Amino acid sequence: MNYKEFESCGLKRSLDLLSGKWKPLILYHLFQEKEIRFIELWRKMPRVSKKVLLEQLQQMQEHHIIERIEIKGFPPQVHYRLHDDTEPLGPALQILEGWGKNR
Amino acid sequence: MNYKEFESCGLKRSLDLLSGKWKPLILYHLFQEKEIRFIELWRKMPRVSKKVLLEQLQQMQEHHIIERIEIKGFPPQVHYRLHDDTEPLGPALQILEGWGKNR
Repeated sequence: MNYKEFESCGLKRSLDLLSGKWKPLILYHLFQEKEIRFIELWRKMPRVSKKVLLEQLQQMQEHHIIERIEIKGFPPQVHYRLHDDTEPLGPALQILEGWGKNR
Repeated sequence: MNYKEFESCGLKRSLDLLSGKWKPLILYHLFQEKEIRFIELWRKMPRVSKKVLLEQLQQMQEHHIIERIEIKGFPPQVHYRLHDDTEPLGPALQILEGWGKNR
């Protein structure tokens, strides 16, 4: 395997995109809730600042893992949901969730 | 979700254990080869020192993700293979591999 193949290893790319301190938790909640307000998501997360949570969400948006939805109103609301491309990961993340619980 | 629940989130635990610079690659090769000599695995990896590869393998052994097999002989050989507990991850890693390829 040369460096180019290494860079294109799908498994490495996936795990790079999905792992980190907060991303697994964000995914976990979004798979459960389908769509969630920013403030509710923040309340579900332990000990993370709104700033850090927003940064993580922005990265996941850029990678088309999640979508940001702005709902007009007074005040306007910001919701997040999984990107359609992320839905096929459901069965994989469920297996990982079960496997991780016993560790 | 309080901090205790956060710590026990299976998805977070799994992604923590499987991600990193070299672990996805090691898994990728071990799922393909079933059992592999250390030196062959090292040759398949791009630009990693034997020392770093060994450290990664030791961590994965401690977490019961892989097994180290010593085959007596002259010289003795060291092989690695997946731990039985890791086999159920096959379908999940396959989904992640496919998903990551398109990113």
